[in-house]
Amino acid sequence: MTATLPAALDAELSALLGPEGWRTDEAARRAHGQDDSRRRAMPDAVAIPADSGQVAAIVRACRAHHVAVVARGAGTGTAAGAVPFAGGVVVSFARMDRILDIRPDDRCAVVQPGVLNGDLQQALQPLGLFWAPDPSSADRCTIGGNLACNAGGPRAVKYGTTRDNVLGLVAVTGTGDVIRCGGPWTKDATGYDLTHLVVGSEGTLALIVEATLRLLPRPKAQAGLRVFYRDTASAAAAVSRLMRQPQVPAMLEFMDRSAISLLRRNGTDVPDAGAMLLVEADGDEDTLPIALQALADAAEGDGMLDLDVAMDGAARDRLWAARRALSPALRSIAPGKINEDVVVPVSRIPDLVAAVEALSAKHALPIVAFGHAGNGNLHVNIMYHPDDPAEDARAHAALEGLFAEVIALGGTLSGEHGIGAAKRDWMDRAFDAATLAAMRAVKAALDPDGILNPGKVLPPPRG
Amino acid sequence: MTATLPAALDAELSALLGPEGWRTDEAARRAHGQDDSRRRAMPDAVAIPADSGQVAAIVRACRAHHVAVVARGAGTGTAAGAVPFAGGVVVSFARMDRILDIRPDDRCAVVQPGVLNGDLQQALQPLGLFWAPDPSSADRCTIGGNLACNAGGPRAVKYGTTRDNVLGLVAVTGTGDVIRCGGPWTKDATGYDLTHLVVGSEGTLALIVEATLRLLPRPKAQAGLRVFYRDTASAAAAVSRLMRQPQVPAMLEFMDRSAISLLRRNGTDVPDAGAMLLVEADGDEDTLPIALQALADAAEGDGMLDLDVAMDGAARDRLWAARRALSPALRSIAPGKINEDVVVPVSRIPDLVAAVEALSAKHALPIVAFGHAGNGNLHVNIMYHPDDPAEDARAHAALEGLFAEVIALGGTLSGEHGIGAAKRDWMDRAFDAATLAAMRAVKAALDPDGILNPGKVLPPPRG
Repeated sequence: MTATLPAALDAELSALLGPEGWRTDEAARRAHGQDDSRRRAMPDAVAIPADSGQVAAIVRACRAHHVAVVARGAGTGTAAGAVPFAGGVVVSFARMDRILDIRPDDRCAVVQPGVLNGDLQQALQPLGLFWAPDPSSADRCTIGGNLACNAGGPRAVKYGTTRDNVLGLVAVTGTGDVIRCGGPWTKDATGYDLTHLVVGSEGTLALIVEATLRLLPRPKAQAGLRVFYRDTASAAAAVSRLMRQPQVPAMLEFMDRSAISLLRRNGTDVPDAGAMLLVEADGDEDTLPIALQALADAAEGDGMLDLDVAMDGAARDRLWAARRALSPALRSIAPGKINEDVVVPVSRIPDLVAAVEALSAKHALPIVAFGHAGNGNLHVNIMYHPDDPAEDARAHAALEGLFAEVIALGGTLSGEHGIGAAKRDWMDRAFDAATLAAMRAVKAALDPDGILNPGKVLPPPRG
Repeated sequence: MTATLPAALDAELSALLGPEGWRTDEAARRAHGQDDSRRRAMPDAVAIPADSGQVAAIVRACRAHHVAVVARGAGTGTAAGAVPFAGGVVVSFARMDRILDIRPDDRCAVVQPGVLNGDLQQALQPLGLFWAPDPSSADRCTIGGNLACNAGGPRAVKYGTTRDNVLGLVAVTGTGDVIRCGGPWTKDATGYDLTHLVVGSEGTLALIVEATLRLLPRPKAQAGLRVFYRDTASAAAAVSRLMRQPQVPAMLEFMDRSAISLLRRNGTDVPDAGAMLLVEADGDEDTLPIALQALADAAEGDGMLDLDVAMDGAARDRLWAARRALSPALRSIAPGKINEDVVVPVSRIPDLVAAVEALSAKHALPIVAFGHAGNGNLHVNIMYHPDDPAEDARAHAALEGLFAEVIALGGTLSGEHGIGAAKRDWMDRAFDAATLAAMRAVKAALDPDGILNPGKVLPPPRG
């Protein structure tokens, strides 16, 4: 990769994109050089294309000059996937932000990548439909970013992640070619599944310029349960029971003992317990009570201490207040937070939580675990003071220990945030050499010169 | 590819696999040279490996000698995907037929590729679980074949296809390397999704040697509706209504006017109608009546002629008798049948059926359409006498016209059978040159010498 932008490329893309679409001023470059990982790097230019033809032209021009191309949605990613460490051109999809079509009869929507997740949900609401992915940043994050990172959210336990809710893509590969895969149908045995390969590839295989999304009928109402358990093992056994019966919970969130203690110290009204589950049902006036009863029956078992039911919106808000209070409460412990989104088989959640407690003791740092229990996808938050070099070193040692435990438990690194730059160097723990080599071969197939988001997802081959 | 088996390869694999695992006699070769497409070709040898290490050794040896490797399940495919037109070694998974693990708490099973779909379902039944794919050949077909072809079935409308119900794979690529992707978890944002890429690639990218399958809680009971409509448009509007409300049907099958007429001529007790839907709900004693009522409400609308309800098993059997009677009835029309499984957006089903009627008239051949309406996945059966050269030519002209119409309607070639050899030469209608080039690049990445199931799925590049 070149260190600064070749003048010929600057001239070509400036002429192609005009002042609206091509920015090399420092303010624009700075604004497009960071994401929610809080890491930053300066790109050499920012391209803001208006259509897929311009995206293809940008990639072809950058390829000719061996310049990196880094796709960017709203910059809400937490794994530094959108940070242009190799410089080059950041491609912002801020101007490709249209919902192109909503087809209720085919239960799908066709969107450009810059559409905000929340804006799509709003457009779908009057039609009685929704798109399943519901990351906590839904109001700010783009669908292109959701696709690139295979975003999830609490609803994934019933309705699947982003990858499960995409039917087709139009994307620009590293050669500047436009590929079209999948389409407005829900069953496909025609050729290779490039759609789901590109989803979750974090801009390293192709830039998504259009997506056909699978829509679902919107349930009329929700109701919830808040259940406290003696210990994580009791709660995890309940999670397995909840997931084995046909009334799939619409959300199934877990909170560990340290999260509960933190809330209690901060004045949230929750009982002293070893673990908590938030369980949600959805349906209509006829089906919701039945679903809720089935979930309550499954939640009950050895080690259950307390169960609260919330049948309506206000009561639900009270139950979920505990979850919402958690993020602010975390900030009261320490200014620094390493927030990972590891995944283990549901049956290994107790082992993971025990390992987290041991890491917390060993490294003398608070570690708080909570998250999407039905998917075995827990957010593990290592709290520390980044300005204290000793704490910083211990936090990173704890992180190392966390990933080692997760892999040993038969789990994987990330459930919904992606790998980006932040977790790249653990990829050779999650995959053996042959599998990484296959991933590198696929990368080379679609991006032969390695210009798309270089340095992300895949670690460099070991010398 | 070599025309006959190199002696060194024969000696090497014979020594490795022994008489149980290496067959070059004509009977074994003949038995492994055909599938349900009724096309056939003789392999040079049949390998029946006992474990994944042997599979990897077979691929490495064949690669060294430039000999084709064709994976084979039970040979129930209809697209000639398992027919070894290039000769070489057919790899049968008949000895890799063990269910390795069933993990109810993690709602997954780990299986070898040779396990029969029906045998897995039987093993899961006492646990209250099931695996979603339910092709009509479930009692005979292998899970490896289901994975290779991305098999479906009627239940896919609610529970998804094979691709939607696989969590992880171990597979041997064309280099003889063993890759491991995914695992016993339901949320994954860690690296490239090779799992879903290999599913549906019909043995051209890798040989699947182990799979972790997503299991679902088994509903206690089913109930059904049989609904007749004036015409296809009324039925298709009902399909859209059925798919837009939250009580997703467990099956949603369509039959066109010619199918209904055929049944009537053959003495099945169905009214004269332009279209029929079979709609199924599942649930328990509390939820099933609610679901069935919601489906009945959605089925009702302009053009509905008649609606029968079947609440219990015997009544359901009577309703489904019409569907079961169809295949034997088809054989009464003509001895030859080209059975395609095209897909269109649900809203275009009326256009597809109109196009099929026009093709039937134009080519003077009976064409009968029925199938999985909720997925827009219809089985179009062109009936003809293969021994009559004129009819044979007209049947293939009608097939050409069918694929052209499907593509023009924004659909695709295959929903659940796969491409194999049979539909390969239409792939450049379904995909543009850039997308096919990307698929070829992915093929070359995982099978650089092109030894895995050569000539299948992808057409040769145009000179």
